[in-house]
Amino acid sequence: MKYLFKNALVVTMNQKSEVLKDCDVLIENDHIKAIGNISDEDKEKAHVIEASGKLLMPGLVNAHSHAPMTLLRNYADDMDLQTWLFEHIFPTEDKFTGHDIHIGTMLGIMEMLASGTTSFIDMYFYMDDMARAVEESGIRAQLSRGVTNPQTGSDFSEDKKLLESIEFYKKWNGAADGRITGAFAPHAIYTCSPEYIRAVRDAAEKLSAPIHVHVDETRVEHEDCLKQHGKTPTKHLYDLGLLDLKTVAAHCTWVTEEDMALLKEKQVTIAHNPASNLKLASGVAPVPEALKLGINVALGTDGASSNNNLNLFEEINLAAFIHKGTRHDPLLISAAEALTMATANGAKALGMHNLGMVSEGNKADLILVDLEKPHFKPLHNPISALAYSAQGADVCLTMVDGRILYQDGEYKTIDKEKVWYELDKIVKRIF
Amino acid sequence: MKYLFKNALVVTMNQKSEVLKDCDVLIENDHIKAIGNISDEDKEKAHVIEASGKLLMPGLVNAHSHAPMTLLRNYADDMDLQTWLFEHIFPTEDKFTGHDIHIGTMLGIMEMLASGTTSFIDMYFYMDDMARAVEESGIRAQLSRGVTNPQTGSDFSEDKKLLESIEFYKKWNGAADGRITGAFAPHAIYTCSPEYIRAVRDAAEKLSAPIHVHVDETRVEHEDCLKQHGKTPTKHLYDLGLLDLKTVAAHCTWVTEEDMALLKEKQVTIAHNPASNLKLASGVAPVPEALKLGINVALGTDGASSNNNLNLFEEINLAAFIHKGTRHDPLLISAAEALTMATANGAKALGMHNLGMVSEGNKADLILVDLEKPHFKPLHNPISALAYSAQGADVCLTMVDGRILYQDGEYKTIDKEKVWYELDKIVKRIF
Repeated sequence: MKYLFKNALVVTMNQKSEVLKDCDVLIENDHIKAIGNISDEDKEKAHVIEASGKLLMPGLVNAHSHAPMTLLRNYADDMDLQTWLFEHIFPTEDKFTGHDIHIGTMLGIMEMLASGTTSFIDMYFYMDDMARAVEESGIRAQLSRGVTNPQTGSDFSEDKKLLESIEFYKKWNGAADGRITGAFAPHAIYTCSPEYIRAVRDAAEKLSAPIHVHVDETRVEHEDCLKQHGKTPTKHLYDLGLLDLKTVAAHCTWVTEEDMALLKEKQVTIAHNPASNLKLASGVAPVPEALKLGINVALGTDGASSNNNLNLFEEINLAAFIHKGTRHDPLLISAAEALTMATANGAKALGMHNLGMVSEGNKADLILVDLEKPHFKPLHNPISALAYSAQGADVCLTMVDGRILYQDGEYKTIDKEKVWYELDKIVKRIF
Repeated sequence: MKYLFKNALVVTMNQKSEVLKDCDVLIENDHIKAIGNISDEDKEKAHVIEASGKLLMPGLVNAHSHAPMTLLRNYADDMDLQTWLFEHIFPTEDKFTGHDIHIGTMLGIMEMLASGTTSFIDMYFYMDDMARAVEESGIRAQLSRGVTNPQTGSDFSEDKKLLESIEFYKKWNGAADGRITGAFAPHAIYTCSPEYIRAVRDAAEKLSAPIHVHVDETRVEHEDCLKQHGKTPTKHLYDLGLLDLKTVAAHCTWVTEEDMALLKEKQVTIAHNPASNLKLASGVAPVPEALKLGINVALGTDGASSNNNLNLFEEINLAAFIHKGTRHDPLLISAAEALTMATANGAKALGMHNLGMVSEGNKADLILVDLEKPHFKPLHNPISALAYSAQGADVCLTMVDGRILYQDGEYKTIDKEKVWYELDKIVKRIF
């Protein structure tokens, strides 16, 4: 299958930060075949997508999410973390079935596709049901079973969650034409004992699998870890050898300079979640310092229950805003840096070198943004416009692996009405 | 003219915070005639707007803007304030004609209508051209000529800008069926001498006109004022008698506890501009304290050059986020409080007691929000959904004074193509 995007304003997000006007881009099967000079033969055979007045850019990568938590969107807000988690979120999550997770994931994918996200990195449970939603919808994802400590001791060879993690990884890593990859997800240091983290790490290492973990999200986590282990959460994980594996560390709100040196040494990606960190009052991660040290910082939404959406354009905007405003420095985190976090840096978080930029040979994970709106006019600077003026709803086409999954409000692979219907039943049953 | 909104989910924003399901709302001419029980006669005569799957709420009030600065959107970003203002903004503004201001305002109004704003409080120059745009488009606005110090001394009876202010007020206050009101706008303490502020104040007092002024936006303004006048900007304006008039004070980023007591005493409205304050690195205003003291806090976008949009849903979201995140307190500024700032508190800023709530007899300044989107599902809590999940683009209908001005992407009173065309000419001429 060939597609030809005609006359697009292409924001490549490549190393040279090229922005190409009135540019044609040819897609062949799952990849970008040519940019600019398209042969007549290719032009003839391609399905044309007229893109004048539209901006073509890499699809966004959501580097930290819990997609099925859409089911808990706007369910419990404006309360303290303990009440929120222990009285509302955890008791409700206990009621979810695999079917619910499948529908919740589908809803999350619908929202992500409609706001320009083409890949996401997720941890939750009922992972087979999540993976099926990813497979069916056509989106790209790195998935992992979030695991928490079953008991004390050091023999976890029979631990159900860890066995599930291993089984899930073996079954799904590389599935759906490679769109699905797996990972291991020891939830956090406050839900996993050192021995358990070690066991999960060893299981992941055996399979050469990457790690997805919450790190230093709150002051309480930071201070408790200092008390309990005499070191920071990052140093604790470093000493346990977890960071020797390819790791995405979500949040890192309270990491120190020394922690960041360790994250840099181990080439850990920080998944920055500005909306969730603000809403849950966790704080503002030291992203300017992390970037200065050369750490790969990507962007995530976290779950829809602490955000309350999966709209990465909002995270881009927040990432470009909050560091300036809270440090009183207007030069921190430029529009281009915030966009890079959501594209090229997200691709690095996924470990994919052929993603996150509009470059020949790269995967055709692309979005079109409709510029014919008042808030994009005048278009003095497309990069600024994307970071400061855009809304998720400006995305009018989302393509993953060369397939159009969303266009002008319509989903090509998802039966919207069916998801609405099943969702309604879940809400009536559980809430 | 009568309109009947049928089967809407009505978020009234009234004192009882009522949310009404499957509710009919009747509009007659410029006001809300009935909510819930509509007579058969009224039903028959009304033009029906089917609103099932939609949310009806008060139109938003933008309490601080410079609408024509849309022309400078994304023109100069990610630089320090001095470079931004003196090397980019001011020199370009000098090139604007009245025609440019008219088109820039029209563009701003288009953006505001499309994202649910039905009133705005603005200061700029070429005010006749702004007022014509407001008159033609059908939106509601309080407008003022922003004035800065002409020279030292105390005789300002011949001052051109002050004379313009007076003339503008006399000509336009109450115009367009009362949709346009006037105000006086001494720009700020760092651009107006004490004598000049006094002169503007006296002219406003003679006409019983309100005041719109920038107050304590940056640390530099705060510290310079302490050095120069031995008091804070708020105390300085208080001592000059400016706050004796009905005042909207934009920003108030650096106000102290003592300042807030003065603002409360004088019933001054604070126009909180979270996006602009973050982007320009001015800081985070002490809004939780202001609300606790009972100060009326409304929301503004500031100009599109420091935002870079006029989308109040973003400000609502930011207002509900940044105080939680920067103070590490998840209970600060609830979703309902943030929404109240953008509706009822905005109406108070305008001095209108029949605006900002869906109540019988109130002005029919209303918006419909399309809930048939993934990010509104499930709809556990409509107030949370509006503050945390909504985008400006979810607005599908905007009504001011009982007239539909915007519906499903189309403007009823504005020739979109003409604005685009004229805008293009301006950009080619100036930039």
